[in-house]
Amino acid sequence: MKILLVNPNTTASMTATAAHAARLVAAHGTDVVAVTSSMGPVSIEGYYDEAFAVPGLLLEIAAGEKAGAQAAIIACFDDTGLDAARAMANIPVIGLCEAALCAASFIAQRITIVTTMERSRLPLERLVYRYGMSGRTKVRAADIPVLSLEDPSSNARARLCQQMELALREDRAEAIVLGCAGMADLTADLRKEFGVPVIDGVAAAVKQAECLVALGLTTSKVGAYASPIHKPYLGALTPFSPEVIMA
Amino acid sequence: MKILLVNPNTTASMTATAAHAARLVAAHGTDVVAVTSSMGPVSIEGYYDEAFAVPGLLLEIAAGEKAGAQAAIIACFDDTGLDAARAMANIPVIGLCEAALCAASFIAQRITIVTTMERSRLPLERLVYRYGMSGRTKVRAADIPVLSLEDPSSNARARLCQQMELALREDRAEAIVLGCAGMADLTADLRKEFGVPVIDGVAAAVKQAECLVALGLTTSKVGAYASPIHKPYLGALTPFSPEVIMA
Amino acid sequence: MKILLVNPNTTASMTATAAHAARLVAAHGTDVVAVTSSMGPVSIEGYYDEAFAVPGLLLEIAAGEKAGAQAAIIACFDDTGLDAARAMANIPVIGLCEAALCAASFIAQRITIVTTMERSRLPLERLVYRYGMSGRTKVRAADIPVLSLEDPSSNARARLCQQMELALREDRAEAIVLGCAGMADLTADLRKEFGVPVIDGVAAAVKQAECLVALGLTTSKVGAYASPIHKPYLGALTPFSPEVIMA
Amino acid sequence: MKILLVNPNTTASMTATAAHAARLVAAHGTDVVAVTSSMGPVSIEGYYDEAFAVPGLLLEIAAGEKAGAQAAIIACFDDTGLDAARAMANIPVIGLCEAALCAASFIAQRITIVTTMERSRLPLERLVYRYGMSGRTKVRAADIPVLSLEDPSSNARARLCQQMELALREDRAEAIVLGCAGMADLTADLRKEFGVPVIDGVAAAVKQAECLVALGLTTSKVGAYASPIHKPYLGALTPFSPEVIMA
Amino acid sequence: MKILLVNPNTTASMTATAAHAARLVAAHGTDVVAVTSSMGPVSIEGYYDEAFAVPGLLLEIAAGEKAGAQAAIIACFDDTGLDAARAMANIPVIGLCEAALCAASFIAQRITIVTTMERSRLPLERLVYRYGMSGRTKVRAADIPVLSLEDPSSNARARLCQQMELALREDRAEAIVLGCAGMADLTADLRKEFGVPVIDGVAAAVKQAECLVALGLTTSKVGAYASPIHKPYLGALTPFSPEVIMA
Amino acid sequence: MKILLVNPNTTASMTATAAHAARLVAAHGTDVVAVTSSMGPVSIEGYYDEAFAVPGLLLEIAAGEKAGAQAAIIACFDDTGLDAARAMANIPVIGLCEAALCAASFIAQRITIVTTMERSRLPLERLVYRYGMSGRTKVRAADIPVLSLEDPSSNARARLCQQMELALREDRAEAIVLGCAGMADLTADLRKEFGVPVIDGVAAAVKQAECLVALGLTTSKVGAYASPIHKPYLGALTPFSPEVIMA
Repeated sequence: MKILLVNPNTTASMTATAAHAARLVAAHGTDVVAVTSSMGPVSIEGYYDEAFAVPGLLLEIAAGEKAGAQAAIIACFDDTGLDAARAMANIPVIGLCEAALCAASFIAQRITIVTTMERSRLPLERLVYRYGMSGRTKVRAADIPVLSLEDPSSNARARLCQQMELALREDRAEAIVLGCAGMADLTADLRKEFGVPVIDGVAAAVKQAECLVALGLTTSKVGAYASPIHKPYLGALTPFSPEVIMA
Repeated sequence: MKILLVNPNTTASMTATAAHAARLVAAHGTDVVAVTSSMGPVSIEGYYDEAFAVPGLLLEIAAGEKAGAQAAIIACFDDTGLDAARAMANIPVIGLCEAALCAASFIAQRITIVTTMERSRLPLERLVYRYGMSGRTKVRAADIPVLSLEDPSSNARARLCQQMELALREDRAEAIVLGCAGMADLTADLRKEFGVPVIDGVAAAVKQAECLVALGLTTSKVGAYASPIHKPYLGALTPFSPEVIMA
Repeated sequence: MKILLVNPNTTASMTATAAHAARLVAAHGTDVVAVTSSMGPVSIEGYYDEAFAVPGLLLEIAAGEKAGAQAAIIACFDDTGLDAARAMANIPVIGLCEAALCAASFIAQRITIVTTMERSRLPLERLVYRYGMSGRTKVRAADIPVLSLEDPSSNARARLCQQMELALREDRAEAIVLGCAGMADLTADLRKEFGVPVIDGVAAAVKQAECLVALGLTTSKVGAYASPIHKPYLGALTPFSPEVIMA
Repeated sequence: MKILLVNPNTTASMTATAAHAARLVAAHGTDVVAVTSSMGPVSIEGYYDEAFAVPGLLLEIAAGEKAGAQAAIIACFDDTGLDAARAMANIPVIGLCEAALCAASFIAQRITIVTTMERSRLPLERLVYRYGMSGRTKVRAADIPVLSLEDPSSNARARLCQQMELALREDRAEAIVLGCAGMADLTADLRKEFGVPVIDGVAAAVKQAECLVALGLTTSKVGAYASPIHKPYLGALTPFSPEVIMA
Repeated sequence: MKILLVNPNTTASMTATAAHAARLVAAHGTDVVAVTSSMGPVSIEGYYDEAFAVPGLLLEIAAGEKAGAQAAIIACFDDTGLDAARAMANIPVIGLCEAALCAASFIAQRITIVTTMERSRLPLERLVYRYGMSGRTKVRAADIPVLSLEDPSSNARARLCQQMELALREDRAEAIVLGCAGMADLTADLRKEFGVPVIDGVAAAVKQAECLVALGLTTSKVGAYASPIHKPYLGALTPFSPEVIMA
Repeated sequence: MKILLVNPNTTASMTATAAHAARLVAAHGTDVVAVTSSMGPVSIEGYYDEAFAVPGLLLEIAAGEKAGAQAAIIACFDDTGLDAARAMANIPVIGLCEAALCAASFIAQRITIVTTMERSRLPLERLVYRYGMSGRTKVRAADIPVLSLEDPSSNARARLCQQMELALREDRAEAIVLGCAGMADLTADLRKEFGVPVIDGVAAAVKQAECLVALGLTTSKVGAYASPIHKPYLGALTPFSPEVIMA
């Protein structure tokens, strides 16, 4: 089985972190192909960055599907471009936030997501609503710039732990979801430290992708995710017209 | 990996149908152990039957966990006894309805569940709400007694198809979920016939179980699913006291 | 008028407390018949205990209806087994939580329920939602084991009062609901002490039962509460098959 | 026990109908004092009439409380002036719609209200939401002017029955609530004709009033229903200033 | 363009404050006609005062419409009498709370309303729900009697600022709405002081009124706001019968 | 006052239609500057087209703000790119759908949006939820390709009218919102034909923009719409990095 993992930001070291987390849980026989978007922001922090992460992301998913990938993962916790990707692709497309919440929902009633920056909190709350989890999920921001997660001298881990403690005490969280693909390698340590389930979206998405492929399920092409209508795309965006990108 | 599948009704032929569906999708290396409850109703149709399916179900899950199962599936679409099972067990426990809706949510926006009897429709609508899917899920009843699904001379399949047609036309469903464990073997045929994703809860639950085990996730023991307090259980129910059953 | 009050746990002293509270408010001419379940847990604390309180409860309701009871009260604040009981019985069946919230809703906009243990808080929050009161009801746990309510040397009362104070100050509660049948005899004192309406579920349920009987209302047998279908129940649960229990 | 029933419209024959329905269900020892508002519209159909039914209604409730009534019923299905009455009075104040929905919620999961005019449907839907019953209650209008209910030559009854049939078939209603105080005397007949619980708000409100009085519950004076602040009311409305009306 | 602004309380100095705020933002060519209700409470604090502010308010709107006003503003933040006014009038009728929330919704995701008295908080929360803004709006009360806003020696401003600080820190409000018509003249100062958008309902309502008039939109007379049916109004309220008031 | 209207699709004739509708309602002194996006799809039908309409849209808004526009309108009913635009710009940014629903909410309780294609219906339903209008708004699709609106030989108008009739009869809509910028010039005719308010998003957005500018309100830069952080944007998207575009 071949699963495509696209990092929609353009920082290759974050792709490596996500790919490592993905391969740790992938089943024997699953080939995780990890790619970095070739255009757009080096990190995704808020609505503006999200908009410009989508073109590069869709390009990679289209290429991956043509190259035989059976499912695609958007390796960013904001589930950037998820609906456009599902309309474009026939293979299942999975977001980290939805996969992590799905896994959490089987083992806990109250969940807290700890994300990086305050400006990502409101978009995540909207996702939580969309996935039907508002009644039992809180979102906290640890005030950590995304790229500082890769800097061992930053106090990113300490801030994350502080919010996890508050989540357990004030939100009465029964499980914690790590709200950034860049936090994936902390999962095992944090589980031990806090004694509750800690869920990383990358790992959850890989298993969910395997699950959908094994079930023979692909994105429904009736309704919301009907394939894009062929039509001209003008100017610099011509290469993205459905006819061209899906050729 | 060893996954326990418990049929909470006492009809062994339905266990066989579910076990067959489960083994069709189980990963290489996954051992599906299927058992039939030893006590209670021969089929589960409505709130009353549900109540009496729980003791036999929990007995099997407790035994299965002791025997080394790494996850348990409740093979009834009503997700009978799910909360009690999660409180009792440490291993993940998965319901068919929640697993099927979870799978559907990754590939479609609007979903219709087609179940057997009208009296099961309202309990399922409450489950749909609980899983946060009310905004995009409808439930239809095909007026089929559960056990007639095993009778080739009944018109069960025709009634099911009639409701699927209505689901596509009136509900604008993008994917169909089969709302009874006994419908599992129709999945492949119905996908071809209707051209939309058709999801069976048994298969979805098996893959979800594998997913949670691979992620190293077990039921949170903080909060709603804290282990039962040891206390006397009187009369005929003494064997179910937490101390005895979990011994 | 004859009203059945069933304590679904097996501790007779708690039945006595509830029966006392019930008779204090019963109308002249109302006969409250109080019975203790003959099987199952000595107290109900969480989902697991709930499951094993149901068989004994239903046995008593079936017997009580045959003996001429015109309404039945489930004397546990978790409204354990309410749906199964309504499907089985023709007479109205009333839960303490729903009766108390109903009474509170006529005299206050914001309500706080103070219950015993944290593990009962989440099941109660789900009940509150089910009864349509989430928008104006909070649930607090006082960290009191149920049976300690009967022990005068415990600090149960002090802990209860502490949560009531927080309810008034932080939740801006306008009325308090006592979230355990075992708290019934504190109602009058707490009203005086706190100066707001304090509502006990047992008393509220008795009056609601009288109300429904006087209105000539019985459980609708169309839809969700249609009578159980006659079918075999196997093994130790044979005595609970609809045919036998409703004979 | 003395219960005040105020008809907030100024048609005395409707007061008589409601009083008759009230006395049929009142407990032995309950004295139902029925009064007709002395000012305002002869029937309440929509938002505008509602506004002008409130002054006369409050005058009667204030007078009734001074004269010793222990609870007050607003005998109009729109629950006109309910919040203002609760703020003014110390005794419990009960609306027909909330009392009927409360009774229905104990015996059925899905409920349909059949009211008179389309223009009353939207205000009733807002009430249904307010009482937390939107998830399980539909409102239908039978296109009957309120006062035609008293005219035997009108086809009011036929139109009502037509909507009840649709409620059972299309809404899958398990119980019917009659959405106008003027329909009270049809209850018994309609129960027999349709075979499901049919609930009249007047009867339900009387029993609910008795229930609250027996429980010793009065409107909370903390928060939303705090007593009106004494202040001047100018012009023609001076007699309604809190100081005067509550003197 | 002629816009009617009715102060539904009977304190002329508050009308002057509102009229001043209105004229500051009115377009060149817009004539703001400000009137004070001739009957009822001197300030509106809670449900009871609201009920008695409606008759005088409707009288002024009816008179204003006859005199050629093209839109009417109810200059009280509780949106007192809004539905009745819309049913009566053909011209658009605008409430301060709805206009302010509407403006805020275009420039911020999270909003906090700071109002005067605790007893106004719950009615405002119900309005916020009605306008579909519950998910992103909080209401705070500053414990300021309405008329003290006009008294420079009171500490009203200090209390208001204290709640605004809490709104920014604890609610993470992105914009503040001033929840009383009497606060209008503080808007500019508070914007500077707090560095976030601060919105006054009077100004917002004036611009919204101009907007609706320019769009040629009037209240729909189909459904909820259908014109009142002509019928007798008895006693002191005869002058308010639809036939008379709309003559 | 200078208001920027950006057509986010690349069809200049649709810009002209929108600009015409905008100028018809613009106040004396308001200068509507209409521009067509220079890149991307010729029409926006579904999630995929939406993603590629955003870059060109943001480019025009950034340029317009620098050139002195005081507010920006996104002239597409899907409110494409609204959040990203608000984060980028300091001036208010207005979507057609939100402006039209806002106007409708002041004059009607039940609203139906009639849009073009089924694939646009689900994204619009999500917008309706986001704007808090789900409880009173339905969305219908007339099965009209966007560009056929400009083709007089198509039966687009007939299909639109058919859905409007259904909206009035089945949805009991009190006002109709036209769900595509290309329908703007039909507004006046349809109002006359159907006798209910008909609202075009372009006109509504122009007035809303004037309203916000007159109130001195700009997008809050605290929280969800904080300005994008300066960071590298790689590859073909470098011109869109916050530093460059906002320079």
